[in-house]
Amino acid sequence: MSPLNATHDGDARSWLDTANAAGTDFPIQNLPFGVFRRQGTNEAFRGGVAIGDQVICLGALAASGALQGLAGEAAQAGAQPTLNALMAQGPQAWRALRQALFDALLAGSNSAATDAVKAALMPLAQIEHTVPARIGDYTDFYTSIDHARNVGMLARPDEPLTPNFQWIPIAYHGRVSSIGVSGQRYRRPLGQSMRPGETVPRYGPCARLDYELELAIWIGQGNAQGEPIALAQADDHIFGYGLLNDWSARDIQFWEMAPLGPFLGKNFCTTISPWIVTQEALAPYRLPFERPAAEPQPLAYLDDPRTRREGALSIELDVLIESQRMREQRLAPSRVSHTNFRHQYWTVGQMVAQHTNGGCNLNPGDLFGSGTISGPTHEQAGALIELSRGGSTPVLLESSGETRAFLEDGDAVILRGWCEKPGYARIGFGESRGEVLPAVSV
Amino acid sequence: MSPLNATHDGDARSWLDTANAAGTDFPIQNLPFGVFRRQGTNEAFRGGVAIGDQVICLGALAASGALQGLAGEAAQAGAQPTLNALMAQGPQAWRALRQALFDALLAGSNSAATDAVKAALMPLAQIEHTVPARIGDYTDFYTSIDHARNVGMLARPDEPLTPNFQWIPIAYHGRVSSIGVSGQRYRRPLGQSMRPGETVPRYGPCARLDYELELAIWIGQGNAQGEPIALAQADDHIFGYGLLNDWSARDIQFWEMAPLGPFLGKNFCTTISPWIVTQEALAPYRLPFERPAAEPQPLAYLDDPRTRREGALSIELDVLIESQRMREQRLAPSRVSHTNFRHQYWTVGQMVAQHTNGGCNLNPGDLFGSGTISGPTHEQAGALIELSRGGSTPVLLESSGETRAFLEDGDAVILRGWCEKPGYARIGFGESRGEVLPAVSV
Repeated sequence: MSPLNATHDGDARSWLDTANAAGTDFPIQNLPFGVFRRQGTNEAFRGGVAIGDQVICLGALAASGALQGLAGEAAQAGAQPTLNALMAQGPQAWRALRQALFDALLAGSNSAATDAVKAALMPLAQIEHTVPARIGDYTDFYTSIDHARNVGMLARPDEPLTPNFQWIPIAYHGRVSSIGVSGQRYRRPLGQSMRPGETVPRYGPCARLDYELELAIWIGQGNAQGEPIALAQADDHIFGYGLLNDWSARDIQFWEMAPLGPFLGKNFCTTISPWIVTQEALAPYRLPFERPAAEPQPLAYLDDPRTRREGALSIELDVLIESQRMREQRLAPSRVSHTNFRHQYWTVGQMVAQHTNGGCNLNPGDLFGSGTISGPTHEQAGALIELSRGGSTPVLLESSGETRAFLEDGDAVILRGWCEKPGYARIGFGESRGEVLPAVSV
Repeated sequence: MSPLNATHDGDARSWLDTANAAGTDFPIQNLPFGVFRRQGTNEAFRGGVAIGDQVICLGALAASGALQGLAGEAAQAGAQPTLNALMAQGPQAWRALRQALFDALLAGSNSAATDAVKAALMPLAQIEHTVPARIGDYTDFYTSIDHARNVGMLARPDEPLTPNFQWIPIAYHGRVSSIGVSGQRYRRPLGQSMRPGETVPRYGPCARLDYELELAIWIGQGNAQGEPIALAQADDHIFGYGLLNDWSARDIQFWEMAPLGPFLGKNFCTTISPWIVTQEALAPYRLPFERPAAEPQPLAYLDDPRTRREGALSIELDVLIESQRMREQRLAPSRVSHTNFRHQYWTVGQMVAQHTNGGCNLNPGDLFGSGTISGPTHEQAGALIELSRGGSTPVLLESSGETRAFLEDGDAVILRGWCEKPGYARIGFGESRGEVLPAVSV
């Protein structure tokens, strides 16, 4: 990580009032990237940056010619229908654009860039998003030891944690085609499952539909095949972060996953948030990464001073369920859990180093899921299967009085994330929202 | 499958003599698609069709305007740097182009199309290939019961076959970025593994490097998310077939794969053959799909009359190893196994139906690996770990007298495939060849 600089100053304010409003996700210290167009049109999608209740259209900004040098090149790359070209430019370009936007947005600024930004604004309320990059490959990690213990206990009570968990940031490849952006609605999957005590599997709608709270981690510059990324350089390959819901069909997943892992139990849908909060914006929220002394310490290739000093990230996370009844009765969605990303057993840098150590090549726009984020207490669990203890103790949705062992048709799941600490501006991730539709008839 | 037609006539001959040569992979009955350019140049890649010792450049052919209607549109789509647009057109377009090329190539033909084809020829000896499609997602199946038993016996002697194997065409998502075309060379992967009797894993070069003999299955038209492809329509979504080597680092794989499946043990490299033999060309080689009565019968959604009548495919397959010593001493590569795709426990149609039944969307250019192809006898095994019984009985390479428990640096692995039966022309797949380079230093 680069050191903190003026763009992280918690007292900085913008001439755009909504960027200074208490509780906004998008103050001048955030400046996340997304891809958008005017709602309900067939316009080309293009890159933008959120500020307050507005988006800065990078297409309009780049065309204005008001940004010079590296920042101008970055705006040009970011103006395309995917952010891949911007992601490929690397940290120097990202920082230059961040600094230029920050300067242009700062209260009292009065430059050609300020005028160009003002001319490039469009209200967030009038836009729609798409997946912000052409994702070449999507990898889903498994890095919360609390989640692994909670779920492992249900599947393998004798040995909830597999012997490799404390040595490897475990991961598997996921499905790119079914990744959608917040607002995604999908049909409850059909599939095969084996019920306890039966000897012939059934085929029908998933009976144990679940969500998983994860972070989306977006790769910037990649690596050549056969050339691993060392841990010391790993963070420089991260473009930014969003939210990711790894919807999971538990009955299908648990029947299919031995020996080759989850497949149809996961690949029907994955819902990401539209905005990518940059690695740079998150700099104030880094924390030491502390592996308890009683635990196995990481092998040398997964250990370095920077990781120990600032490998962890403090990101607050909420999961909410909004049932059909809540929508009909205009009740607020119910929060079902709250946790923080700082509890993960492996850092994002360790994920990058592990992913590439055998020579696997990453590309700009590749997506990682962090793995389900569950904290150490029961209430901090990142999936219903954990909260409901395998479905046996349904969770109360306080706003409507309903309960959920697993998701029902019409349920929407909303993920939210933000960072805050004294002296710094609160920055938010927006949300990932997805909704379950009834299954197709068999 | 469409019924056999004139393009399958075993007696048909071309005016191009090399297409009629005994043992050619590319007679007039084959007409496989690939993407190529002139060797050693920076020319744009474009689609082509192999015939004898030549390739028909679809760019030149389409530009000639000699092909009319659907065939002309298909040639135009096939002329692009990837075959995705052609794959998206569907079986009618593929058949129209096949018929037009066949007519133009037929001995005695004398049309504008014949002249255009002659003008569009280039020697295979002068071209180089790239991956023939932009692959959105790559899925690797696990459909040989003999392979599953052979490998399962090593990992889980008590229960070699997991309970789901006979009910589900098992699969997992694989890595797209590291897929390369025949000729690929890659460094032996580094990775973490746990040796028997030890309690701390080691990090270093893979000590149990292996290949897996598979078919590459290329998806043509896809499906919308949430709309499964029924088994009865599944074959219409297959564009064609090639060869695929699913290189595997067994020590890394076996340590990492519980509970989420193979990841770094596989994602460092996958090598495909450049030519795609069309579903249409394989029509004469279909066979009834017979599930022994003693085995569980497929659930209804994985069973239909067409599958029973012609769900299997008879494709002969060879695996050869060429060691560095063989190259130095100009010895022929050694064949280490021979098998046939007809032994697979699940059909390709069943794979498509299973993959989409939960709503997962396939796209044109998606790639399936068939899973390792091992026949019922020990000699028919599709991986070294099976042939060498977990490394305990090294395999003799007859041409040089060397032995192999696992692959050594400098080894090239060559996969070949072909179909033949009385009354029909032999059609071949070309080859997938890949070579192991030494690991980077740790």
